[in-house]
This record gives sequence, C-alpha cells and structure tokens, in this order.
Amino acid sequence: MRILLINPNTTAAVTEQAAAHVRRLLPAEVVAVTGRFGAAYIASRAASAIAAHAALDALAEHVAGCDAVYLACFGDPGLLALKEVSPVPVVGMAEGALHLACLRGRRVGVVTGGALWKPMLEEFAAAQGLAGRLAGIRTIAPTGGEIARDPDAALSRLAAACRTCAQEDGADVVVLGGAALAGLAARIQPDVPVPVICSVEAGARMVLAALAAPAGPPPPPSRSAGLSPALTRLLGGE
Amino acid sequence: MRILLINPNTTAAVTEQAAAHVRRLLPAEVVAVTGRFGAAYIASRAASAIAAHAALDALAEHVAGCDAVYLACFGDPGLLALKEVSPVPVVGMAEGALHLACLRGRRVGVVTGGALWKPMLEEFAAAQGLAGRLAGIRTIAPTGGEIARDPDAALSRLAAACRTCAQEDGADVVVLGGAALAGLAARIQPDVPVPVICSVEAGARMVLAALAAPAGPPPPPSRSAGLSPALTRLLGGE
Amino acid sequence: MRILLINPNTTAAVTEQAAAHVRRLLPAEVVAVTGRFGAAYIASRAASAIAAHAALDALAEHVAGCDAVYLACFGDPGLLALKEVSPVPVVGMAEGALHLACLRGRRVGVVTGGALWKPMLEEFAAAQGLAGRLAGIRTIAPTGGEIARDPDAALSRLAAACRTCAQEDGADVVVLGGAALAGLAARIQPDVPVPVICSVEAGARMVLAALAAPAGPPPPPSRSAGLSPALTRLLGGE
Amino acid sequence: MRILLINPNTTAAVTEQAAAHVRRLLPAEVVAVTGRFGAAYIASRAASAIAAHAALDALAEHVAGCDAVYLACFGDPGLLALKEVSPVPVVGMAEGALHLACLRGRRVGVVTGGALWKPMLEEFAAAQGLAGRLAGIRTIAPTGGEIARDPDAALSRLAAACRTCAQEDGADVVVLGGAALAGLAARIQPDVPVPVICSVEAGARMVLAALAAPAGPPPPPSRSAGLSPALTRLLGGE
Amino acid sequence: MRILLINPNTTAAVTEQAAAHVRRLLPAEVVAVTGRFGAAYIASRAASAIAAHAALDALAEHVAGCDAVYLACFGDPGLLALKEVSPVPVVGMAEGALHLACLRGRRVGVVTGGALWKPMLEEFAAAQGLAGRLAGIRTIAPTGGEIARDPDAALSRLAAACRTCAQEDGADVVVLGGAALAGLAARIQPDVPVPVICSVEAGARMVLAALAAPAGPPPPPSRSAGLSPALTRLLGGE
Amino acid sequence: MRILLINPNTTAAVTEQAAAHVRRLLPAEVVAVTGRFGAAYIASRAASAIAAHAALDALAEHVAGCDAVYLACFGDPGLLALKEVSPVPVVGMAEGALHLACLRGRRVGVVTGGALWKPMLEEFAAAQGLAGRLAGIRTIAPTGGEIARDPDAALSRLAAACRTCAQEDGADVVVLGGAALAGLAARIQPDVPVPVICSVEAGARMVLAALAAPAGPPPPPSRSAGLSPALTRLLGGE
Repeated sequence: MRILLINPNTTAAVTEQAAAHVRRLLPAEVVAVTGRFGAAYIASRAASAIAAHAALDALAEHVAGCDAVYLACFGDPGLLALKEVSPVPVVGMAEGALHLACLRGRRVGVVTGGALWKPMLEEFAAAQGLAGRLAGIRTIAPTGGEIARDPDAALSRLAAACRTCAQEDGADVVVLGGAALAGLAARIQPDVPVPVICSVEAGARMVLAALAAPAGPPPPPSRSAGLSPALTRLLGGE
Repeated sequence: MRILLINPNTTAAVTEQAAAHVRRLLPAEVVAVTGRFGAAYIASRAASAIAAHAALDALAEHVAGCDAVYLACFGDPGLLALKEVSPVPVVGMAEGALHLACLRGRRVGVVTGGALWKPMLEEFAAAQGLAGRLAGIRTIAPTGGEIARDPDAALSRLAAACRTCAQEDGADVVVLGGAALAGLAARIQPDVPVPVICSVEAGARMVLAALAAPAGPPPPPSRSAGLSPALTRLLGGE
Repeated sequence: MRILLINPNTTAAVTEQAAAHVRRLLPAEVVAVTGRFGAAYIASRAASAIAAHAALDALAEHVAGCDAVYLACFGDPGLLALKEVSPVPVVGMAEGALHLACLRGRRVGVVTGGALWKPMLEEFAAAQGLAGRLAGIRTIAPTGGEIARDPDAALSRLAAACRTCAQEDGADVVVLGGAALAGLAARIQPDVPVPVICSVEAGARMVLAALAAPAGPPPPPSRSAGLSPALTRLLGGE
Repeated sequence: MRILLINPNTTAAVTEQAAAHVRRLLPAEVVAVTGRFGAAYIASRAASAIAAHAALDALAEHVAGCDAVYLACFGDPGLLALKEVSPVPVVGMAEGALHLACLRGRRVGVVTGGALWKPMLEEFAAAQGLAGRLAGIRTIAPTGGEIARDPDAALSRLAAACRTCAQEDGADVVVLGGAALAGLAARIQPDVPVPVICSVEAGARMVLAALAAPAGPPPPPSRSAGLSPALTRLLGGE
Repeated sequence: MRILLINPNTTAAVTEQAAAHVRRLLPAEVVAVTGRFGAAYIASRAASAIAAHAALDALAEHVAGCDAVYLACFGDPGLLALKEVSPVPVVGMAEGALHLACLRGRRVGVVTGGALWKPMLEEFAAAQGLAGRLAGIRTIAPTGGEIARDPDAALSRLAAACRTCAQEDGADVVVLGGAALAGLAARIQPDVPVPVICSVEAGARMVLAALAAPAGPPPPPSRSAGLSPALTRLLGGE
Repeated sequence: MRILLINPNTTAAVTEQAAAHVRRLLPAEVVAVTGRFGAAYIASRAASAIAAHAALDALAEHVAGCDAVYLACFGDPGLLALKEVSPVPVVGMAEGALHLACLRGRRVGVVTGGALWKPMLEEFAAAQGLAGRLAGIRTIAPTGGEIARDPDAALSRLAAACRTCAQEDGADVVVLGGAALAGLAARIQPDVPVPVICSVEAGARMVLAALAAPAGPPPPPSRSAGLSPALTRLLGGE
C-alpha cells in the first residue's frame, strides 16, 4: 500500500518529520510531498486558504499510483476540495484525529500551537458536525513551526494546556494537533490526567480505516487558467 | 492482537457470521461471544435495553486477555457503559461505521432491517453528535434476524432503500447496518450510485484505529446484587 | 388511582422513602417495588444500564392493575424502553422534573449527588431535547445513597451547589434531583435565591398530568431467552 | 384552589367554552376573563402582539386572590411577560401541552386552525427549546374562531391533518391546539392512529403540576403611561 | 426618501436623540414618533410586550407616505408583527445591528444598559438564528433611560463591559445597543480593543440596504375591538 | 468612495457585468478586477478553493486606495481570509445577500446555477450561523457561466426554482445568487409569489452598510514562498 502524505506548507523539514512518524506506525509506503508555494508555517486564515490550493496542486502532481492521500496539516486546508477531485480516499489530519477521539471520549479537547488556529479549528469541528463533541480548544503562543524548531521548550506548556482542557473544559480525551508535534503526545501523557492522542498517528490510522469505503463518482470537468499543468488536467477531467 | 467480539443478542449464528467476516478482514484473533440472555434479535427499545446488560455481562466474563472490544450490534446497546468499565478500548459497530462514513461523504445515509430501529438510530446518531451529518435512516421491514435467515430475499429491498437514501435524502455515502448483514454491502454496491459501507467491516477497522488512543482511568467501584459473579467483580473494582 | 412506583436500584429503603413522599402528595394508591438485581445505588453508566433491565423486569411483574408507572430514579434508566412496552403511561423522575421546571424558569439548573451523573444527565437532557434549557448541572461528591444515609450532612453542600447554579450558571430555577433526596428541596429553599424543585414531587405530579394523554399502540412481539417469566411474556406480546 | 383563566382575544364565547371544559376536569374554581381589546380571534402576529398586552392587562386586573394563571390561548401571547410580573405561577396552553406531549411521544405533531399560526408556533416551540421534539405543525384553513362557530364542519379536516402528522411527519403524538377546539380531541381520536392530546385539558393539568414550583422574586418596578390603572400599579410594583 | 422612526417607549427625549443621530447619518427625511402608551423606558419583558402594541399603533398612524420603518428600540419589540402588517420595509435596531456586526466579526458581543435585557436579547438573537454568532451579552446596571440622562457617568462602565466581551467572551466585534446610547460607540472605541458598533447607526444603515428587497403580500384582514382607529383599519385590511 | 470589486474566477466578462450592475446602483467608484488564475467559472469545491487564493492575490495587488472590498462571487471563496488581511472592510456577495434577506423574510430560499453549489452553499450558510434561517437551496443545471452566455434561456428555469423554494420549501424570500445573474431578479419577480433579491445588488448595498463598522487590528505577519510579490508583502505585514 502506498500513501501520499501532503504537507501543504512550504517547509520540507515538517514534511519529513511527519512522514517519518507515519512510516514507523503504518505497514505502508509513504510518498511525502511539500507545498510548492504558500506560508512557511500555516498559522492564519490567509495561509490556510493558499495552502488549500497548494494541496490540490500537490495531489494533482503526485496522486498517480497511490492508494490513499493523507492531508497532513492539522486544520486540513482544502480537505473537501481534495476529496472532490481525488481518485483515491483522502483523510485529513484533524478530521481523522477528531473522529477517532470521539471513540475514546465523550468530550474532546484540542491543543495546538498558534493562537489564530482556535477559531479556525472551532469552525472546522463545526463543519464536521462535531461541535457538540468539543470540550474546548486551547492554543499555546508558539506556532507549530516554532514548536518544531524547539519541541523541548514547548512540552510543559503543551502539557499545561492539555490539563486545562481536562480540568476546566471537561475534556475526557485531548488531541494534540499539528504535523510538527508528531510524537509529543507520548511525552506529555504522564503529565495529563486523560488520554492524549497524537494527531499524526490518529490521522494515519484513519487513512487505513478509510480504505473500507469504496470510491464515489468523479466531479464534472472544468476549464481553468494559470494553474500547474497537472492540476489543470485533473480539474479538466483528463 | 486479540479482539473480543460481543454479539449481545442470544443467537449464536449471528455471532459466528459477524466473527467470520471480521476474521477475513483483520490480522487479529477474534474471541466471539453471544449474549447469555435477552432477545433472539434486537429490534426494539426493550430488547436493546436488556442487551446493554447482556453486553456488560459478556465483557466482564471474557475481556481478560483481550486488547480491544468490538460491540458487534448495530445500535451499540450499552456502548458508553462498556467503555466506562472496560480496561481496553471498546468500539461499537454503529459508532465506528458512522464516524468512518463521515470521512467518506458529507451526508451519511443508513439502511438497516426492522422499522423500530429508525428512531433509535436517529437518537444514537444525535447522541454521537452526528445528527448534522445524517442524511436519513431507511429501514426495511424484515429485521436483521429475518435477513440473516434469507439474505438473498432482502438484497433488492436493501439496494432500493440505499438508492432512496442517495436520491431523496441526499446521502453521498450509505452505511448498511447490522451484524446479520455482514458482507451484503459489496453485493448491492453495483445497484447503488454512492459508496455503500459494510458496518461490520467499518466497525472492525475502527477497532484497530482506536488502539491509537491510550486508556483512561477506571470508574469508582460500586456494590451490586443479583448479577453474575464476573460482572459483580468488575463493577466492584476487583 | 393506582401508581406503580419503580425504584430500579436494589435498596428497598430508598424505595420506601420515595413512596412515602409520593403518598403524602398524591391522592393515589402507590405500589412501590425495588429492583431485583443491580447496583445498591445507581451512580455510573454501567449501573444505569443494568437498572434499565431491572426496571423492565419490575414493570413486567407488577404493572397489571396499575393506571400509571412512575420510574422513580433521577436519570430514568430505561425510560423509553418502559414507555415502549407499558400498557399504561410511564413518567420518569428526571423527565417529569425537567419539563416541569421549564414551566417555572427559562434556564434550569440541576443539583444531585454523585459526580458521574453530570455527563449522564447532560446527555439525558439533550436526548429530551432540553439541552437549550439547561443552565448547568452541579453534583456534590456524596452519591444519592450516601445522602440518604445522612441527609443532614449534605444539606449545606446541596444548598451551596444550588446557589452556584443560580449565580454562576444563570439558572432561574433548580431541580434537586434524586429519589434519596425526597423532601430536601423545602429544607434548602431558604438558602437559595431561586425556586428549588423537589424531583420526587415534580415527577409525581407529572404522572398525574400524563394521564391526559391516551395510550398508543403496543410494539410487535419478540422472542427472548434467559429473562424472567413476566418479562418474557411482556416482550412476547402475551 | 382558584385559577385565573385568561382568554386574551375579545370573544367571550371562546372564554366560556374553554372555562367550561376546564371546570369539568379540575377540582378548582375557575375565574375566566376575556381580553379588553384586540382581535376577535388571534390569527396573526399583529393580533398576537396586541393580545400579549391584553393578557397583561387582564392579569393585573384579576390575579388578586388566585393561586395560578392559565393563559388559555394556544400560542401563549405574552407568556414570559406574564410570568415576569405574576405573583402566582402562570402556565400557557401551548407551553403546557407541548411539554406534556413530550412525556407521551418522541416526536410531537401539532394541529390547529389558521395558516398564519404555523411559523408562529414553530418559533414558539423553538423558544421553548423544543424544536428538536417537533415532528411538524399542520394547520387547516379555518381559524379557531371559525372552528368554534361550526366544529362539526371541521372535524374531518382536523382528523386528516392529525393523520398526516403521524404518517408523513412521523409524529407519535399529536396536540390538537386551540381554546376554541376544547373537547374535539376525543372526537377525532378514533380516526387518528396515534394519541391526540386536547391542548385545553393538557394545559389545565399542567397548571396543577406547576403548583409544585415555589415562586421566584418580583421584577424591579417601572414607570409607565397610558395603561390601565391596574397594570400601571402592577408594573409600578405597588 | 422618508423613514418612519418609531421609538416605542413613551419618552420623547429618547425619540429626538435617536432621530437626530440618524438625520446626521442618512440622506433621508426622518419622521420620528413616540409610543402613545407604555413604559417610560423599556427594561422588562412586560414593558417590551406592551411596546409591541405601541409600535403597531404608531406604525398604523404614521406609516402613510413613508418608504421604510425603523423600529428604533434595541430589542425590537413587535418586530415581526410590524413586518407582517407594514406596506413598506421594517428594520429593527437590534436586528440590523446584529446582522451588520456579523459582517465585521465572527463572534459578536453586545453591551447595553439594564440587567433584564440580557436573557431577552439572548432569545432575540436566537430567534434571529444568530445564537451561534453571539460571543456574549453584557449589561450594566443603569438602564438606557438612566444612561440617557447622564451618559458621561456611564462611559467607563460601558467601555469596561465591551472590553470584557472581547477579552473573556471572545468577541471580535461589539454592538453597543440602545436608542439612548446613540453616538457613545465612537466615544468608547479608543478604550476597546475590537470594533464597537453604534446600534442606532447600524440599524439606520440597514434600513437603507433593506430597500433592495421588494415588498411581500399583505396578511389577511382581521376584526378587532378596543384599538385605535388607525390600527383597527390597518388590521382590517382597509 | 472607491470599492474594489473582486471577481475571483478568470472570466473578465463576468467581472464587467457585475461591476456595471453595481455602478448603476451605488454612488461609488468601482475598481473591478478578475482572478489571475483558476477556473473560468467557479462551480466546484476545487475551483472555489483555488479562487480563495486568487481573491487574496487580487486584493493584495489592488486594495491600496480603496475604501471597501466587494468579493463578488456568490459563495464567497476565501471570505474570512480576505477579512483577516484586508485593511478595509470586506463583504462577500453571498454573505451580504443572506444577511439582508434575513431582514426581509423568516425563511430564506436560494436559487443559483450549477448543481455542485448546493452543498457548498448549505455549508456556507451554516458557517455564517444562518442554517436555521435557510428554507432551502435550489440549483438549476446550467452553471453561472452558462447562464451568463444565454440568460434568456435560463429565465423560466430560474423562476420555476424560485417558485419551488416558496411553495415546497416554505421560503418567504428568495435570493437569486450569482455574479453572472446580475439583474435577472427583477425580470423573474413577476413570476414568483415572494420577494426575489438580486445577490449582486444586495451584496453591494451591504458593502455600504458595512462602512459603519470600524476596522480591527491586522494579523501577525507571516513568511511565505512562491506567491505574488504583492501577496507576499501583504502576508509579511509590509
């Protein structure tokens, strides 16, 4: 099995970190690609909107020969657009982690880096229909990019935010979200009184589960201008 | 890996059918148990309430040595109670299938056997926080038990109900629900214009995914009377 | 008029306490029965699931000759299953008290004993469609059983929780819930700035009101195994 | 016990009809008053807005010496305003009937006369927090006033609307709403497959139940101009 | 263009203050009228219910020759009733300000005077379908009437409440609501970290925008008694 | 006053059509720009995701010197991202039209061209918090692009869809959505029994209203790669 892992920001180090984590977990070949354009780290609505285009661009270029696509950015820019055009199942990191967390707890907390993500993730959860399952979203000030550069410095703040989710928001499970936070859940678990889920692992496991669902029909072709050749062809139905 | 598959009705043939289907799909040992008491087929609120007790009873007796529990009845009687007392992750068949279906489509249809299930499943989906993802629930008159005895007779009615979900309710994915319907999704897929998900397979794959989530703390012990020795011990915190 | 009061836990003293309170209030004969099996006090999801079976068992054995059923456990285990099979109206204690409280205030607080009840009651209120009317649910650590053994010790904590409901959660009416708390509402009312409703009384009055609604049709019969003779007959449609 | 029954329209015959029905049901003295100004029959938003004022006016004039107030217009104009200023409990006819119906069925249908009531009652149910319990609202063209003048002519249309609620909307209980429809529920019940609740009776029984809830504090006084002396005094806190 | 500005309380000074503010903003003639009866300042449910009648009364008397109606009381008593009977578009102050605020921020805070307004405005926003956009409603103790008499004394409390909306409730825009608060938004803006919207201005601008929507059909006529001649004629369809 | 009108598809003729319509309505200078890349007509999730990037790109290049931005594509690709980075107010065509329609009717219908828009617009309305105000969304098969090329051919189908919204979905106002449908509302109004709102006009009027709301603070700067120089500078906070 071959999984296309798309990191839609433009920092290859984050791509490699997430891919390495997934390779340790899944019995699958992982093809990892980085966004061709956009923010170095996605931490705003504008960066996320551009990343949706970049993710489509990457999918169009690399999906051939893959069995599934893992959109490996917590916040899942362009998720439904990718599902629309992809010939194989697509799972987003936040999508997968949130649904999986619902199996583990009644009220799901989310902790991630970057203050602007809070309303964006609240809206994402609501769009998934999961607003009612959300206990609360807590962010720490450093963005995913900053955490990636110095994870040790962020550990105690992440653990504190998870504890607040449990103790103040009533979460009985917490998702630690972010490609750049791969593997940190296990490190902070001893300091958190409820289960902490690694979004990179959870999303990856949900990619495997999603293979149970057969493919739907492709969308009608559309004409476009100024896009990459591969994306132009994909949208054109070729 | 060893999975405890609990069929909380009292018909061993259904247990075997579901277990066989899961064994074909998962690289896991499946310990399959049948309810000690209750309805032959669960098709009413009363039968479902009794089945919750039967499922707890089965878990208490058989969970030792297992890595996860699969509550293999679509409708998941007692799901949260099992999660509360189980030392290992528990996934319900409807729970798993509905969350997985959310990854495949925006609006999820459900088709199953037995008219009384419709409001029960609507409430189940709402309690999962997934009411907003539900396109509609369609039942055919024969119950799961009747379909199990003569699946061929039910195929065209199941396919028609799935088509109605797609065409009238706007579902872009349909879950074919029921332990007794294991394997029928693939048979009706050619006659349905949207993906059809087998609830037995979907639930089983979600059991694997759920292993990503670490265990939470056990509940406080409680004293009881008139229950099986194993269940008395489990509730008593022994 | 004859009311079957079912206490689905296995502690006869609680049954008697609730029945005595109802007998003082209603111009009705009260037939009071205790669960044959299950938890001494219901304070967890597992205990509540078993209690649903015990309540069905009690109804099947004792409903003949009664005009209505009062499921006298705040949290109403098995409520909809009892309504499904009962030949006479069934009202649950939490159901009745919550709907009655909605006539008295805009935002309803709930105070009861036992920390595990909070999420269970939140889900119960949501399943009743009343989530939007709930100001908040506050629990004190002692369970109903512990409060029953020493109510005086609990009074000040119950009053404090009711005040918190009013002052922090914005409740303009509070339900003091629990069979074992019968009669305590009047004792704490002087210390609470909003009306406090006794769940035992409220539920009982709603049993009377419910006699206004004619009976619906019985469910289809079903075959079962390992249940009490009376429950087997009731489910079998005899 | 003495109940103030307020009919906030200006047709005394409707007042008498509702009061007579309540007197047959309740062991209580019924003081029945008619609106001093406003629509002959309330069948629009404008008429309902004026009726709220008329109901306040009637309460101010007549509440002294009464133990409870029954706002006997299905749609409950001014309900929360009356509750705000009344020294004794107030129950509205639609309020009481809808909450009582929730004890009898999962999904509540409503049938009444006058097409403009449909959105108004949908909003009323939503404001009660009961939107999720509503199966549907069906109106027949004749208004309550027209039905009151010739009930026999309306019976078959009302029964047909109730059947539609059950068969198309999925209602498992139907409220037949309207002061002018007092007593018609029993007449159409034989032609409807689910229980039909008389709103006049249901509301009246809920007035009795509401006596379980102690009174709350009065609102702060306010100065006004151009109102009746009694209402001026009531609002002024005298 | 001619706008009928209705102040449904009975204090002419508030009418003049709001009208003067609108005249400075809009290129329109403003016909300003004060309620004939009711509370001096609207600060309770009872006062608001009476004001709905007074607003209808004012509209009936003065709408002839106007192009639009501005219901200039934050809380919009009788809004839907006025829309029902008016031959020209009607916009309420809270309605217009809340919808406009939704264009400016994701989560809307509201600050106004008079503690009883909080639940009333929460219900108003919910009835508008905007509950999900509301960050929170904060009131200060002085009512609009008291603020009108001494605005300088209220400025710092209003600013503090706006800051609390932003910092504790997460509002990214705040509506300063109340006819009597016209023009205060600009004065407190320097002390508030998010945009503050003047409800009088916002509502007035939305009156202009609403002219884009063509008129709908009039309601059926109805007979009434005891109302003003103009209102009797309007309801009678003359 | 100067308004930047952004058409985020790549068809300049649609830009001109919408701009001409706005110029006829508003006393403002309209700077009209077309997307540099993306779909010729936006009629899918993928095209919409790319258009969000194109709209950001256009805003960055052209916003200097403008007082407000009108995102003139019904569906508002990138709306919140544009609001995040824009120094002046941004209003989307669907956003403005839906909120304005809420002032005109209780339940809002939407008619547009292109079947894939239906779920996208349902999600847009839900994200606006307006799901509860939506009566229904009806699409006709020709996309906006096809309607623009031959509007006369589409008129009767658009009118029929509007009538269905009114008669089957219960809409009391209908928004005719789409930049390419500018001016068609007035042409079909005679054939529709409820008010029909032109989305191009409604959105434009809401741009004027939105000038009432002061600007909020800019987002933190972020580093990016592969974007246009103007967008790189805008995101970089220069």
